[in-house]
Amino acid sequence: MKTQRILSGMRPTGRLHLGHYTGALENWVERQNETLADGSRAYETYFLVADYHSLTTSLDTSPLDQNSIEMVTDWLAAGIDPEKSPVFRQSRIKEHTELFLIFSMLITASRLERNPTLKDQIRDLNMDAITYGHLGYPVLQAADILLYKGNTVPVGEDQIPHVEITREIARRFNNQYQHPGTGSVFEEPEPKITRFSRLVGLDGTAKMSKSLGNTILLGDTEEEITAKMRKAVTDTEKLRKNDPGRPEVCAVFSYHKRFTRSQDIDEIEKECRSGALGCVDCKKRCVDSIIRELAPLHEKRAFYADKPGLVRQILEDGEQRARERAQATMREVREAMRLG
Amino acid sequence: MKTQRILSGMRPTGRLHLGHYTGALENWVERQNETLADGSRAYETYFLVADYHSLTTSLDTSPLDQNSIEMVTDWLAAGIDPEKSPVFRQSRIKEHTELFLIFSMLITASRLERNPTLKDQIRDLNMDAITYGHLGYPVLQAADILLYKGNTVPVGEDQIPHVEITREIARRFNNQYQHPGTGSVFEEPEPKITRFSRLVGLDGTAKMSKSLGNTILLGDTEEEITAKMRKAVTDTEKLRKNDPGRPEVCAVFSYHKRFTRSQDIDEIEKECRSGALGCVDCKKRCVDSIIRELAPLHEKRAFYADKPGLVRQILEDGEQRARERAQATMREVREAMRLG
Ligand code: SF4
Ligand code: SF4
Repeated sequence: MKTQRILSGMRPTGRLHLGHYTGALENWVERQNETLADGSRAYETYFLVADYHSLTTSLDTSPLDQNSIEMVTDWLAAGIDPEKSPVFRQSRIKEHTELFLIFSMLITASRLERNPTLKDQIRDLNMDAITYGHLGYPVLQAADILLYKGNTVPVGEDQIPHVEITREIARRFNNQYQHPGTGSVFEEPEPKITRFSRLVGLDGTAKMSKSLGNTILLGDTEEEITAKMRKAVTDTEKLRKNDPGRPEVCAVFSYHKRFTRSQDIDEIEKECRSGALGCVDCKKRCVDSIIRELAPLHEKRAFYADKPGLVRQILEDGEQRARERAQATMREVREAMRLG
Repeated sequence: MKTQRILSGMRPTGRLHLGHYTGALENWVERQNETLADGSRAYETYFLVADYHSLTTSLDTSPLDQNSIEMVTDWLAAGIDPEKSPVFRQSRIKEHTELFLIFSMLITASRLERNPTLKDQIRDLNMDAITYGHLGYPVLQAADILLYKGNTVPVGEDQIPHVEITREIARRFNNQYQHPGTGSVFEEPEPKITRFSRLVGLDGTAKMSKSLGNTILLGDTEEEITAKMRKAVTDTEKLRKNDPGRPEVCAVFSYHKRFTRSQDIDEIEKECRSGALGCVDCKKRCVDSIIRELAPLHEKRAFYADKPGLVRQILEDGEQRARERAQATMREVREAMRLG
């Protein structure tokens, strides 16, 4: 069986929240640790700090270094094992930009303008005019993936168009350039549909963000989580303990569904509806569930949090390993293109 | 006085013709050799084999290596001195792509779409849809120039819009990022309006190209030049020697104007008009003028033409020197952006 390779990345936004955890990180760790019947790893995994990508939405690079260290600290806390998975910053590996330039010749500008995700971003970010680099971010993404010969891309159903551009570029490259020894340089990566559990914000809105203050950070202490949970939005018509509530409109209940043991969820739902359970107690139970889930993260996090030097070393080591892989791919690319 | 730096480049099209010589190369050599009153060089000159740029119009990379060697052989024949001017291939210096990606974030896609030169190219090349990389070629050009801190760009009057994009990008970078030690990383390069003498094709058409067979190559022998000149278009109404001719509609006369000694040109014009001069003799004189001009090139060319290994060595040496310069610039860029 051929080796399955996954390149996953996040923009360095600093400390991560529960949404990053359930929406990506948890899955990354699962794929990293998944084994085949013979005990070997099911996937080779690479984890990218996508700092160049963050330039598409903000040119302010001053927080990138600190944000990268904080984010990677949370990755490590969540179970990313740097021995198994190189962890590295995109901007430290020039080959990303080299392959980006080559790939930029293999796709039309109008194809990128039709990219539905980009259209959404333009609307969401209310941007007058997107930069040339922003228009090309799926090209950079294709370079990120294919530089490490990524052939599997875990995606939510709505992200399939993204993978399609990477597949088109790989196909176009292979049609145009064949390696004299090994033929096609790239595989067309397969999307692997993955159900990510999306959390709502504590205020009940769909978008979680640190700046909205509606999130629980992975590194939050029990006190911080309790304080945030206290302000979480519940059924606004349940004013006092004995009022019957509607879990389906309650943000807290959606956290129960993700973090509380399934045997307890039915009971909470029933007691909320009957009025036997008050929101204050319900929130306490929810905090307990989250704490239980985060306990192993907190333990690992405590180890890394006051060792930024160690995190940097882990990155530098990951960068060296990633660079070797990237350079091997670029050697093949250049041989296929006879660029010498 | 601050150092003037010029980066000039050509796409590797193989052996060069007289149009390349009068339209660029001659000027390159002049700038390279120009000295100030104190005997020091007026310009630092860098000469780029723009192989990545050639991907914007053709994805076929198989002839690039051979074409690069042939083109550089003609550069050396024309007087490019690799001791004075690093001569190097764009694709061998990764920093071009690195700065290209960074610059891609500093200009909008719509600004590039409004680039008048691109609009002309789309029309001339009859392209359905331009690639993303083609749309971005002024961004790559800005990276080419600024990577070597180019601050002077010799241009024909019609090319000023090009330099404008490079200036905008330099300005935008300096506004966004300041180096902690030295402040602004880039100068906005100044266009230096230069009168390039443009030659028509031997068939009288404006476009010279090897594929049309209407050009004289720098490396053509006297016999080859004579044979090509024999087929050159003259005044089509001058059918025999004694017919009066009209030099202003004759392609051959335009070559006289560029290559024949000025004291002889008036005489040729008069004798053509009176009918005293026949086209066969006139063409012979024109061949003589071209040969005289090309004699020193032919001598140098004979030295390099059978030494492709030496030309390669010159390129590798130029690449090493250019790379050091490029890396120094990228260190500054990364420090200004705090990319580490
Ligand atoms: S009891 Fe729990 S589930 Fe019901 S509304 Fe209150 S917080 Fe929400
Ligand atoms: S005599 Fe010379 S200038 Fe006159 S038409 Fe003939 S080639 Fe041209």
